[in-house]
Amino acid sequence: MSATRLLVIGADAAGMSAAHQAIRAAGSKLAVTALEATGDTSYSACGIPYWVAGDVSSGNDLVARTAEEHRAAGIDLRLGATATGIDRQARTVTYQDADGEQVLGYDELVIATGASAVVPDWAVHPGTGQRYAGVAPVKTLTDGAAWLDLLVRLPKGSGRVVVAGGGYIGVEMAEAARRRGCEVTVITRTRVMSSLDPDLSARVEKGMHEAGVRVVVGSPVVRLDVADGRVRGVYTAEGERYPADLVVLALGITPNTAYLDLDKLPSGPNGGLRPEPDGSLADGIWAAGDCCETRHRLTGSWTYMPLGTHANKQGRIVGTNLVTPGALRFGGVLGTAITRFAEGPTYLEIARTGLNEREAAAAGIEVTSLVTEGSTASGYMSEADPVAVKLLAAPSDHRLLGAQIVGGRGAGKRIDTVATALWHGATVDDLAWSDLSYAPPFATAWDIVQVAARRLADQL
Amino acid sequence: MSATRLLVIGADAAGMSAAHQAIRAAGSKLAVTALEATGDTSYSACGIPYWVAGDVSSGNDLVARTAEEHRAAGIDLRLGATATGIDRQARTVTYQDADGEQVLGYDELVIATGASAVVPDWAVHPGTGQRYAGVAPVKTLTDGAAWLDLLVRLPKGSGRVVVAGGGYIGVEMAEAARRRGCEVTVITRTRVMSSLDPDLSARVEKGMHEAGVRVVVGSPVVRLDVADGRVRGVYTAEGERYPADLVVLALGITPNTAYLDLDKLPSGPNGGLRPEPDGSLADGIWAAGDCCETRHRLTGSWTYMPLGTHANKQGRIVGTNLVTPGALRFGGVLGTAITRFAEGPTYLEIARTGLNEREAAAAGIEVTSLVTEGSTASGYMSEADPVAVKLLAAPSDHRLLGAQIVGGRGAGKRIDTVATALWHGATVDDLAWSDLSYAPPFATAWDIVQVAARRLADQL
Repeated sequence: MSATRLLVIGADAAGMSAAHQAIRAAGSKLAVTALEATGDTSYSACGIPYWVAGDVSSGNDLVARTAEEHRAAGIDLRLGATATGIDRQARTVTYQDADGEQVLGYDELVIATGASAVVPDWAVHPGTGQRYAGVAPVKTLTDGAAWLDLLVRLPKGSGRVVVAGGGYIGVEMAEAARRRGCEVTVITRTRVMSSLDPDLSARVEKGMHEAGVRVVVGSPVVRLDVADGRVRGVYTAEGERYPADLVVLALGITPNTAYLDLDKLPSGPNGGLRPEPDGSLADGIWAAGDCCETRHRLTGSWTYMPLGTHANKQGRIVGTNLVTPGALRFGGVLGTAITRFAEGPTYLEIARTGLNEREAAAAGIEVTSLVTEGSTASGYMSEADPVAVKLLAAPSDHRLLGAQIVGGRGAGKRIDTVATALWHGATVDDLAWSDLSYAPPFATAWDIVQVAARRLADQL
Repeated sequence: MSATRLLVIGADAAGMSAAHQAIRAAGSKLAVTALEATGDTSYSACGIPYWVAGDVSSGNDLVARTAEEHRAAGIDLRLGATATGIDRQARTVTYQDADGEQVLGYDELVIATGASAVVPDWAVHPGTGQRYAGVAPVKTLTDGAAWLDLLVRLPKGSGRVVVAGGGYIGVEMAEAARRRGCEVTVITRTRVMSSLDPDLSARVEKGMHEAGVRVVVGSPVVRLDVADGRVRGVYTAEGERYPADLVVLALGITPNTAYLDLDKLPSGPNGGLRPEPDGSLADGIWAAGDCCETRHRLTGSWTYMPLGTHANKQGRIVGTNLVTPGALRFGGVLGTAITRFAEGPTYLEIARTGLNEREAAAAGIEVTSLVTEGSTASGYMSEADPVAVKLLAAPSDHRLLGAQIVGGRGAGKRIDTVATALWHGATVDDLAWSDLSYAPPFATAWDIVQVAARRLADQL
């Protein structure tokens, strides 16, 4: 009997987790080929802002597994190979590489083509279709290298960087550019960190301001001021002009699924695929990672939340189920996320999980919420930093629905405690009275998340 | 109708949490008296090693609520008042103060007399019954002040401190004495941090050794070498002599219940009281805090685990139930705890929750365990420190049973994630696949506790 032909499109976290897991489980019964449009595999996109900031010395450090390592594991990895179509009847994939169009048959197919940075029309020269010089996203290793080059070439201490978008990448790139000595303006349609409620995101905005970042909220960038093909400034929807030598495109990412016949595959309005909990998408086709939507564990709704954590899990689930059908199911997402803004006098850890007020309202869920101020450690310790914990719960049954944390060192990872409680359907009372750890350098006798839970429970 | 007379014995975390909570709920319907044997109220015993180390400038900083603050809340607080007996028939408490023996009636009584440091016979002069000069425990603010005095009077750079006992206080005082410039020897019957399994506690021992602390395991201190009433050295059970100018008694604590007729109250073999989950001990009598045993949430067995976290919760539960009977129940303990050893080149966070191998065996529970090595942050970040996570689970149903963590900055508080999973009866699979937070400065894409859970699940 010949080996099953597994074809993986996309050689980053999701696809390569699937491939390696399947090989571990099935060994030589599987012949694995992987197509990767770029020249890079299995790298940490999340690390790029820290590379740009100078915290990481080389882009190679961000690579978890090189092409050679994948090949050594038995994967026929083809770089520079861009999938262009799937023939589900014939079970073939068409792709383009340097030699032209190729066709490859499969028995099982994993779609893991990830996502691309959103590049708005205003960032592109209408004639050439190319981005203007000095205007770039932060998604790929190529982007990271380009940013280092752009920043190095700025006259020292005089560069003006506009960050378009105030989400995770926007905040991280604002930090990176500040640390590179630039004058930084973040311009955002709504506010910074809009995955937090306004009361918590205001704390982030304040901290960024204190670190010398100008934050412009409520009005997105809509137009560039370009001279000689090079950006010189941006205009917001309100018509304000901000000078800029460089513009960071931090406007989110969008699934790479344009090559698919989306009418015939389960997918959402923005092109995100909608696999079953076991990772299967259609007969002989699986999907994982940033090209997919996921089910929110609390609402059951489809949501687009492309994160490395989910990609790794989904890839591993697909790889397992390819060999042992039905062995694992993806449990959904809570929207847990963390970042920090650390520059100058500001050090803020920023984290969230579950539903925020806007998401709860959209899901038709009534919530009561409360912001509790406290300390990351006993007040008499030098480790004690302020922290604010916002919790959301259902007034009817006290069920915990979400949390947001902004605070000093040690604040952010506390989100995992709340996420774990959420994962298990806990009430705020459960959280308030559970047995968490305490010692003066690490917490108050009631940990701040417990104080927050107790106080919210008292209000329900 | 006259106010209910609430009498609280012991004015620290448990007793004062009960008193304040009851006052908040009942107001003037309650007349609260509190007896406190010492002159101090509501202080952080856990902070004393950091005060001794010099991290905290004053013992006053450790006081959460002063006598004046308690009185301002309406509590008739009597300091220097040592309870000597209870007449349950007459509903009176006898106590000693500067004026002699006093008797006080009550309608409701809260026993919250805490615990005292174990002072072994060898530490005490057989004639005077007093501890030898330079030999002292670390439990009360008076102890803390005495330690500062003892350390200050040592000739600079030449003090030799022996720490008898290698638990939390022993490790913390070893750090404190090292930071005060002393030569430190920790001597322990078993090993350091014996609430961890040997494989994890060995990491702590190694770290202490690297910080210049001599650690002597497997042989307790059994005798002092005393000259002119002053300690000059200690002898271990193996007959080895270690020179000592000062000896820290870090041998655990024991419930302050000798004044009670324990035959007639639910209590354990070592004098710890055994209240019901609502905090009630007997008719009109409640108990909370370090004078109590607690039920282990995982085994259902009584255990003596005197910690400030439990004392605060139990006090609040008693205070609530005094006014609204049955409103709250104590959910048991998991044995969650954290500390650190940070000195010289060593920075180790140390945490545990649930059952260790010895405890599981004692409870007749079969466990499989695994130590997983990883990193507190993405490997390319300067924040990345090594961390070891040991998980224990039931091979039959994958149920998580315990965790131990030793590692760098950010490692320790991850125990709360596992404790929360344990609280909800999670399996290792639940923990492995839940939605925890990731960003390069804070974690790897699979958080180390998830890697540990996944690897252990694979072995079950």
